Amino acid sequence: MLTREGCPKTMLSIKDALEALEGRWKLLILFSLQGGPKRFKQISKEVGGITDKMLSKELKTLEANKLVKRETHDTFPPAVEYSLTAHGTSLEKLLEELHYWGLAHRKEVMGK
Amino acid sequence: MLTREGCPKTMLSIKDALEALEGRWKLLILFSLQGGPKRFKQISKEVGGITDKMLSKELKTLEANKLVKRETHDTFPPAVEYSLTAHGTSLEKLLEELHYWGLAHRKEVMGK
Repeated sequence: MLTREGCPKTMLSIKDALEALEGRWKLLILFSLQGGPKRFKQISKEVGGITDKMLSKELKTLEANKLVKRETHDTFPPAVEYSLTAHGTSLEKLLEELHYWGLAHRKEVMGK
Repeated sequence: MLTREGCPKTMLSIKDALEALEGRWKLLILFSLQGGPKRFKQISKEVGGITDKMLSKELKTLEANKLVKRETHDTFPPAVEYSLTAHGTSLEKLLEELHYWGLAHRKEVMGK
């Protein structure tokens, strides 16, 4: 446990994290990339329900936040792959927590 | 680690969690309530930068998701307090992870 008082410093770090991970897609994209480097279409299929425009935008933001790297392989036609940076990999525990909590939440709220 | 493949079942539980916690405020409100039951104005002050209208809306959604409970104390004038349910308390580990990751992220991206 962190604190029993609302500590402004902790609030700030949680705000930082939420800002970098905001929206409904980023954590799903990062989770998909935990399975190893992937191409755009593979990510799109795994995440499900995301438009190409949105995926492209989210990948750019994740790159800017040093969570994802984009590599172009020198083939013909050139192949572009996305993978997690070390910093992106550091979200593994958070994603795991989110997964287990999501399971518990489904039981609690939806009774399934 | 959960899996090296993008498992649809895991993706679903993460989607469930993200849906219940979406937006920039809910986790901050829940974090504030980790410090014990609080009144509306206290939460507002601790979270910072949230309008009353938004806080009211978010508290209602958190109640509907069984994460927060609202209690009216039989005083004059009646005092309304918000607190975490057992299910809301179960987010403690996730918030802790988010805090530590936020600290690391600030160092990584902002170099502070």
